[in-house]
Parts: sequence; structure tokens; C-alpha cells
Amino acid sequence: MDKREFMQAHLPAVGSVRGSREHFAPSNIALCKYWGKRDAQLNLPVNASLSVSLGHLGTRTRVEPLDAPQDSVYLNGRLQGADSRFAQRVSAFIDLFRMGQPEQMFRVDTDNNIPTAAGLASSASGFAALTRAMDEAYGLGMSDTELSVIARLGSGSACRSLFEGFVEWQMGVREDGLDSHAIPVDKPWPGLCVGLVKVDEREKRVDSRAGMQRTKETAHLYQSWPLQAGADLAKLHNALDERDFGLLGAVAEQNALSMHATMIASWPPLLYWQPDTVAAMHRVWALREEGLALYFTMDAGPNLKLLFESASQAAVEAAFPGLEVIKPFGD
Amino acid sequence: MDKREFMQAHLPAVGSVRGSREHFAPSNIALCKYWGKRDAQLNLPVNASLSVSLGHLGTRTRVEPLDAPQDSVYLNGRLQGADSRFAQRVSAFIDLFRMGQPEQMFRVDTDNNIPTAAGLASSASGFAALTRAMDEAYGLGMSDTELSVIARLGSGSACRSLFEGFVEWQMGVREDGLDSHAIPVDKPWPGLCVGLVKVDEREKRVDSRAGMQRTKETAHLYQSWPLQAGADLAKLHNALDERDFGLLGAVAEQNALSMHATMIASWPPLLYWQPDTVAAMHRVWALREEGLALYFTMDAGPNLKLLFESASQAAVEAAFPGLEVIKPFGD
Repeated sequence: MDKREFMQAHLPAVGSVRGSREHFAPSNIALCKYWGKRDAQLNLPVNASLSVSLGHLGTRTRVEPLDAPQDSVYLNGRLQGADSRFAQRVSAFIDLFRMGQPEQMFRVDTDNNIPTAAGLASSASGFAALTRAMDEAYGLGMSDTELSVIARLGSGSACRSLFEGFVEWQMGVREDGLDSHAIPVDKPWPGLCVGLVKVDEREKRVDSRAGMQRTKETAHLYQSWPLQAGADLAKLHNALDERDFGLLGAVAEQNALSMHATMIASWPPLLYWQPDTVAAMHRVWALREEGLALYFTMDAGPNLKLLFESASQAAVEAAFPGLEVIKPFGD
Repeated sequence: MDKREFMQAHLPAVGSVRGSREHFAPSNIALCKYWGKRDAQLNLPVNASLSVSLGHLGTRTRVEPLDAPQDSVYLNGRLQGADSRFAQRVSAFIDLFRMGQPEQMFRVDTDNNIPTAAGLASSASGFAALTRAMDEAYGLGMSDTELSVIARLGSGSACRSLFEGFVEWQMGVREDGLDSHAIPVDKPWPGLCVGLVKVDEREKRVDSRAGMQRTKETAHLYQSWPLQAGADLAKLHNALDERDFGLLGAVAEQNALSMHATMIASWPPLLYWQPDTVAAMHRVWALREEGLALYFTMDAGPNLKLLFESASQAAVEAAFPGLEVIKPFGD
């Protein structure tokens, strides 16, 4: 089954477009990572994942019906060429909504307020916001769960950006992916901090889609990844229930390092780390040995995302000058 | 079964000591790594491994019967304190030979000609040389296979340093480890080069014995390590049969990175890499993209061991100034 077949089977009847709509969706950082697809067409994951949404940091997307031969896609105010990867992904996603009226074009304005080059993916918040905007533009009135399923078709982790706070992406078991969507985990954690350590601002040479594919195909160690992720997810729920920061941090850090381990064990080797990445890791570990409750997570890139609580903020900022600190739940 | 029980069951009857003896054993570098023990008492491995011995680089050990209340252990000409870790490991190993005559002491002179701080373990060559010297000191006349079994009791990888050239350590299946020993693989490879990149000369904070134990206990990904190692060993034999350097290098590099991946996925994380380690890796990969047949392997430390052939030596030395180059089989 491909995306179009899925939408034909499950999208409510699409009438005529209602007008322009605008929506915001938050970026999210996974504490238990999405790494590996059991179905690359539908972005169905090998393992369940758990993230925290980043409050006001994310993507605001506006869609406006357009009488023109093609979509106009703007990113942060700049028109993107129709053959750019960005515009093509956006238009291909909109295709899923306008299937009955293929001539209906849109102007899409995507504005990210994510700190530049901090290693926060904007595709998750972008496809989540676009999904909400398209749902309203056509007046479909889908539920959050249905929207999460559809956002997943644009970018796997986008299904988590439909919700605030902690979010679990349940992997599901169905072939059509109807049960593979995110749900909110209502366990707010005031004072939780995420610190963005910027190591390298250049674009990645291997994107995460290609990275997880290579890992799955060439790293024997990947076979044990679902085991690691499953155990980590259960422990993270314990950490949230008990408000046990040491457990939360340790599980998130081991999970991220295990994901990177599967990349390092692939062929050709996939190492997103730069020398400064390793220097930052050693600094975190040295601070932790001195008693600071500081952990990190990382995505498919060279940048660290520090995890700590408000009480440690001054000490962490002293050790990482210029750190950008995000508080997903406020202070 | 512990080491003493094994020796009581299998050591030939030990008579009186014959006199002083001296032996050399080469250091070795594994292309398929020994990582994880199925029996920590007897150093029985989870997987078979394959190494190349480093010719004249290694350890020369002399044992001399001593009329004294305790052993005198010298390392590179310097007397080691009786309570030093080095002297204690040497004396504990000699205990296995003098079981019937516990009062027989020795002076032991251990001289390593291994380039200082290049990340070459001296315990493998050290215990191999000591095993040969003790065998002769007591006139036991054991076979190379028997000596390999006993050297393994001192340090796992020492069983490989009994032989020159390529060497396979067959993991064996017996509980007493009688079938877990090295055998020579008679496939010489003139022109094969090993280049030592020195990243950090400080002593490791976690030795490989502790490292493999932590990995085995805490890294879910370790469960797939035997699979990786088994596949790699088979491919290495193909590479030796076909004299296929690209295959040899790729398998050795992925094997080493997979071993490090299991450490990175353990808890607390075990990362031997320094910023300069990662810089050197990226340099290798950049050179390879430019067409240079250059690969690396690494042991439980921050230093890279480059693998290349004589034809590439000038280009490799230009990229890694000050490189120490070893030719296990000559030119």
C-alpha cells in the first residue's frame, strides 16, 4: 500500500476548498528515538518512540488556495524553486489532500522559529502544521489521531508534533498504519530544560531517512535496536511516573548513543560526530562525575541536546557558554 | 573451573626447574576483535577472532630461577613493586607453573620494543613470551597449541601472539577451554602495512577487561555482536584467500567500529574516542573517497591503526605526518 492508496481508503470525502488557514505545530525532541522503518512507503516504524514537544518553538504554516498552474511554496519568506526538494515534498504531501481536485493549487508559507542550525529538525513541526492547515482548508474536521496518522505520511516524527508535552508514537501493528500514530502523555514536567549545543551548522551529507535505511541494511547490531528501544520506552514511562530525572536522563542518553552506535556499525560507516561533538560529550560526563545531573540526547547530526532541570541551569550555562535553553513546560 | 584447576588437570608433570630461559613473542592486531567472554575465569571468548602478528615488534621475556622469598619482576629494566598490578599479574601467572613447588621464585625481565603509547597492548606479547619461557624453564616441551591455551589464561589475546603472520583464535566449545586456542593461518601478505596514529598516550581509565564486561552486561546491542563477528571472520578468510585488500580493510574497519558501537551503547557510556580520534577517522574517509585504499582498525583506546598496502605508503604518510609504519610480512 502506498500513501495515495491509504488516503483514498481513509480520507473523508473532500469537498471544495474553504479558504486560507494557518496553523502552528511544535518541534519535538525524542527521548526514545524513531530509528528504522518497517514500511518505507508509509513511514511505519520498527519501534515505538517518545518525545517532548518544544512549546512555542516550531513551525507556523499558512495555506491559501491559489489560481495558478502550480503551488507556490515559501520557506521563511522566500519562494522555493518548484524543483527544490522542499517544494517538492510539500506539493507531494498536498497531493494527498487534493486527490479529487488535482487542479487545486496552493500558496504555502512555512515559517520556522526554530533556532537556526541547532540540529532541530523542522520537518516534524512543518508537516504537522501543514496537516492541520490542510484539514481545515478543506473542512475535513479530522480528529487529532487521524491527523497524526496523516502527518506521519509526510515525515515519520511529524506524527508526534501534533501534540504538546510528552508524546508517545505507538508503532501499531496494522499493515495500513491506521494504528501507528502519536498520543499525548499527560505528565507535565515543569522545570525540565533542553539545552542546544551547536557543534556544526552545515547541512548533513546523509539525511536521517537515508541513514536509517543504511543502518537497517548493513549493521548487524541494528537487529538488537528494537530490544533497546522497547526497554527504554518502558523505563521512560517509569521516569515520568516517578518524576525521576536521573532515570529520564540516563535512559534518553543511552537510547541516543545506542542509535548512533547502530550508525557507527553500518557500512559505509555513518558517523555524524565531529571532534567538537566528542569534546562536548566528555564535558557532560566530567560534569556528571562531579555531581551535576546533566545528560544529553542527539539526533542524526553532530549537535548535542542537553537535558537538565531548572535547578542546574546556572551550572550548565557556565560550562556551556552561549547555550540556548528551552523549557517545554515553563519553569 | 578456575585456572589452577585447569592446570592441575592438564599441565605435564612439572619437575625441577632447568635454568633461565628467554623468549620473544610478537604483538598482534586483531582484524576481527575479541570482545566479550563466555567464561571470565578462563578467558573463553564469545566469538572467534583473527589477528596479524607484528613481526619483530613485541616482548622479549627472560625468566631466571631465584633463591628469594618472592619473585622479582622487571619491566623495561625497572624493578616493579611486588604490589604493582604488573608484578602481581606476572607472579599469578607463574603460580600456574610452579604449583607443585610453590617456593620456587623467579626473576622475570620483560622488555617491550613496541612503540611507546601507540595503543598496542603489550599484555598479549608479554604473556605469550612468558608462557614459552616458563615452558622451557621447566622443560615441559608443550606443543604450540598447548602453549596457546595456557597463554590465553594470562590474557585472552596472548593466545594469538604465539604465532607469526595471520592467526585465528578458535573460540572452541568445551567448558574447560582446551579447544579455545589460536592456530596460524598460512597466507602471508607481503606489502601489507599497519600505520600507528597516536592520538592520546595516557593510560586508559577503563581497561579492556572491564570494558568488555560492562558492554556485555549493559548494552542491548551487544547481543548482535557475535553475529557481526562471525560474519566478519568468514569474510576475512575470503579476503585472505583472494588477496582482496578492499575487502580486508572494509571488514576490519566495520568490525572495529561495531566493537566500539557496543561500548558506546553500554551504560555508563564507554567512549574511548577523543576529538582527534574522530578527526583522524574523517580524514581516512575523505582520503578513501578520493580513491586511496586506506582503512583503519582500533582497539579499546583512542588510537587508530591504519591498514594499507605498500603502494599507498607515500600517500598515507603525506596525510598522516609522523606515522609509524609496520610491515608484518616485510615489503
